[in-house]
Amino acid sequence: MNHPIAEIFSQGEEVITGQVADTNAAWLSQKLVQMGFVISRHTAVGDKLQDLSDLLTEISNRADFCICTGGLGPTVDDLTAEAVSQAFACPLQLDSVALAQIERYFIARNREMADTNRKQACFPRGAIRIDNAWGTAPGFAIQHKRCWFVFVPGVPTEMRHMFIEQIQVELERRFVLQVDKLVTIKSIGIGESDLQQKLNEFSLPERVQLSFRAAPDDVQTKLLFSADTADSEINSCVNQLVKKIGDEVFAVEESNKPSIDLVSVIAQLMAEKQYSLSVLETVTQGLISAKCIGQEWLQDSSYKQSIEPYIAQLGITRQDDLAQVAIAIAKQLKLTLTADLILVQLYLGDKEQLQAKEKSIVLYNVLQTPHGIYQNTIAVVGPIKRKQNQAAIRALDLLRRYLQKHAFNPIK
Amino acid sequence: MNHPIAEIFSQGEEVITGQVADTNAAWLSQKLVQMGFVISRHTAVGDKLQDLSDLLTEISNRADFCICTGGLGPTVDDLTAEAVSQAFACPLQLDSVALAQIERYFIARNREMADTNRKQACFPRGAIRIDNAWGTAPGFAIQHKRCWFVFVPGVPTEMRHMFIEQIQVELERRFVLQVDKLVTIKSIGIGESDLQQKLNEFSLPERVQLSFRAAPDDVQTKLLFSADTADSEINSCVNQLVKKIGDEVFAVEESNKPSIDLVSVIAQLMAEKQYSLSVLETVTQGLISAKCIGQEWLQDSSYKQSIEPYIAQLGITRQDDLAQVAIAIAKQLKLTLTADLILVQLYLGDKEQLQAKEKSIVLYNVLQTPHGIYQNTIAVVGPIKRKQNQAAIRALDLLRRYLQKHAFNPIK
Repeated sequence: MNHPIAEIFSQGEEVITGQVADTNAAWLSQKLVQMGFVISRHTAVGDKLQDLSDLLTEISNRADFCICTGGLGPTVDDLTAEAVSQAFACPLQLDSVALAQIERYFIARNREMADTNRKQACFPRGAIRIDNAWGTAPGFAIQHKRCWFVFVPGVPTEMRHMFIEQIQVELERRFVLQVDKLVTIKSIGIGESDLQQKLNEFSLPERVQLSFRAAPDDVQTKLLFSADTADSEINSCVNQLVKKIGDEVFAVEESNKPSIDLVSVIAQLMAEKQYSLSVLETVTQGLISAKCIGQEWLQDSSYKQSIEPYIAQLGITRQDDLAQVAIAIAKQLKLTLTADLILVQLYLGDKEQLQAKEKSIVLYNVLQTPHGIYQNTIAVVGPIKRKQNQAAIRALDLLRRYLQKHAFNPIK
Repeated sequence: MNHPIAEIFSQGEEVITGQVADTNAAWLSQKLVQMGFVISRHTAVGDKLQDLSDLLTEISNRADFCICTGGLGPTVDDLTAEAVSQAFACPLQLDSVALAQIERYFIARNREMADTNRKQACFPRGAIRIDNAWGTAPGFAIQHKRCWFVFVPGVPTEMRHMFIEQIQVELERRFVLQVDKLVTIKSIGIGESDLQQKLNEFSLPERVQLSFRAAPDDVQTKLLFSADTADSEINSCVNQLVKKIGDEVFAVEESNKPSIDLVSVIAQLMAEKQYSLSVLETVTQGLISAKCIGQEWLQDSSYKQSIEPYIAQLGITRQDDLAQVAIAIAKQLKLTLTADLILVQLYLGDKEQLQAKEKSIVLYNVLQTPHGIYQNTIAVVGPIKRKQNQAAIRALDLLRRYLQKHAFNPIK
C-alpha cells in the first residue's frame, strides 16, 4: 500500500528573508514521516497574495495532505485566508464562535481587541475551524481537489500544540497510515565515514533503509524499518549493528519514545548508583557543567584559566608526561573535594592553537572514581566554539563509559 | 529600478524529512537580501528526479537567479546534475579539470577515489564550473531562459565559502543591484512587545522598513533603508531610536560589518580597561563562563549547587533580604579572589520552581567593582534551558552596563 503524499508550506517574511530557519517545516516533517506520510516538498513564500494563491492551486493537484504555517495574524501582511478564498473560489465568512474566542483572549489579558483582529475569525466557506488555546488566531482546514489542507499559526508553540492535540488524530482518521519504525543508534568518538565503513559489510534486508547523520553532540546511525517488520527482526538487526559499532554507542532511540542524549544516559546511571560529581574545567570553560543543567548529582564545578597553581603545588614541571599531570591533579583534588567522582578536563597547550580553527589541540580527561582512575586523550579541531563543545562531550563521554562499565582498565 | 528576483532550492532527504532545518536557505536569503535581491520562494525536495526536473523548469520561467544546494555527492541519491540535464535538455559532459581536482582531493588524504566520484565531474553542456576548495564536489552554473542557476554542495561550510569567495562577485557582475542598508539595534532586558510600544509613536520615513525579532540572546530592532538613503539620514534615524529605547541597547550592528554580540561588547571594554573577572554561578551552572570561551579576562569561575556554606560563614539566615545575601557573598569573595571584578549570580529558590517551565524564578546578580557594588534583580521563566540562558545573558548584561557606565548608582 502506498504512503500518502504530504507537502509543507510556510508563509512569512522572517522565513523568506532568512531571519529564521524554517524550524516549523523540520518539526512537522519529522512528525509526518513518523506517522507514515511521504514528504514530497517544502515551500516558503513571502507576503504576496498571488504567490500564495498560485502555490495553493499547484499543491491541490499533486498532494494528499498539506499543512501551512503562518499568515493568520491580524496585520495587512497576513494573507492566508484570503489566498485560500481566491485559489479555491470560496468566499470568506465570519465564524461567530471564532470571534468570541478571540474576544475572550483579549478580555483575559485586560486588553482591547482591535478591529484588525476580526479578520482572524473569517474563514473560507466549507472550512472547519481548529481551535487555538495558545494564541489569538484559530486555524482552519479545508478539502480542495485531491488535497486536505490545514492552516495553522506560524508561532512554533501554538502550531505544535494544535498539531499534537487536534490535527494528528484527524490525520489518523482520514488517511490509511502505515507507520514505519525509526531506530537511531547514537554514538560518540567515531566519525561518520568510519561508521559507514564499519557497517558497509552488513547486508541489510531490503525493507530497511540505512542513513547517517553527524549532529553537533553525537553521530547517528538511522534505521528505517517498513511498517510490517516484526519487532523481533528489528531488535535482532539493531543489536547486530550495535555490537559491530562497539563501545562508542551510548544510546539506542526509538522514534515513538522520548529522545535520549548523553546527559540523560549519565543522569540515569548516576541516580542508580547515587553518585555525586565535581568537575574541574580548562578549555571547556564551564560548558561541561552547563550541559548538566538541573542535574542534582553535579555538586560543584570550577574553571581555571591557569592551572599553574596546581602544577606548582605538586612539584611537576610541564615537561613531564602531560597525562600524568592530569592524574596527579585529580588525585590531589580527591583530598579536598567530597564528591564520589571527580572529572578533570585538562588542556596544556597555548592559546593560539586553541583559537586557530585549522589547528587541532590535544586534551586530557581524567576521572577519579571509587574503582580507580580512568582517562582518555583526545584531539579536537575547528573554530573555538566547536573545540569547546567537542571537548565537553568527550569529557562527559568518559564518565558515561565508566558508568556503563565500558571504560578502559583502571590505572592507579 | 526593480530588485531582481531570486529563489532558493535545497535538495536532500535530511531536509525534506525534517532531520535538519534548512539553515542553508536562511543563510543564503540573508546574504541575497543584503545584496539587493528580492527572495520570492524557498523550496526543498527529496531525491526524486522528476520532482527536481519539474521544479527547475518552473523556476527558469519565473526567477532571475536561483541557487540550489545539495545533490552533488557521489551516491545514487545525488541527482542534481542529471535533473538539470533533463530539464534543460543539455547532455552531461565530463570536465577533465574537475576530475583532476577530485582525484587530487583523495590523493591528499591518502584515500582512493571511487568510481562513483567520477559523476561529480560531469556537468551539463554549457555550464561553468565553480571550484570547491573545501570538499570533493565542484559546483556549476548555467543560464536557462530567464534564470541564472548556481548549483553548490549542501554542506554548509563548503557552500558558504563558495558563495563568499566566488559566487557573490559574479552576482555583482551579472545583476544591477541596489544595496538596501540594514541596521540592527540589539537590546537586552526589554520584551519585543514593549519595544514595539515604545517605537510606535515614531513616524519613520516611507523608505525605511521597521521590523522586530526576538532572538535567544537579545531582542532586535531592524531598520532597512532603501539604497539611496544618505548616511547622515540613517545615522540620525538610528540615533533617535537608540535614545528612545534607552539603556537596554548594547550594540548597533550594520549589515556589511562583522556581527556584534553581548560578549564581544564586553570583551572590547574589558580589554580597554584591562580588567579581570571571577564568576560565581548558581542556576546558570557554568553557562556564564562558557559563553566567554576564549576570553582571557575571565580568570576563573565556579558553580556551587548549594551556597549554604557561604551563608553559614556569613551568619545570615535565609529569611534576610536575599539581595543583601548576594551582596554579602560578593564582599566576602573579594577578600580571597584576585580579579578586579567579581560577578555573583544567585538563585535562592527551590529546585521544583526551576524545573517547572510555567513557573518564573527570581534571580540576583551582584557585581563587585573598584567603583562599588552594582546589582540587578530579574525574573526568568520557561523550560530550564531557557531559564539558564536568560539568567546567563542578564548576568553578563549587568557587567556590560557597568562597563558602559550605564549601571545603577553604586551601593556600598
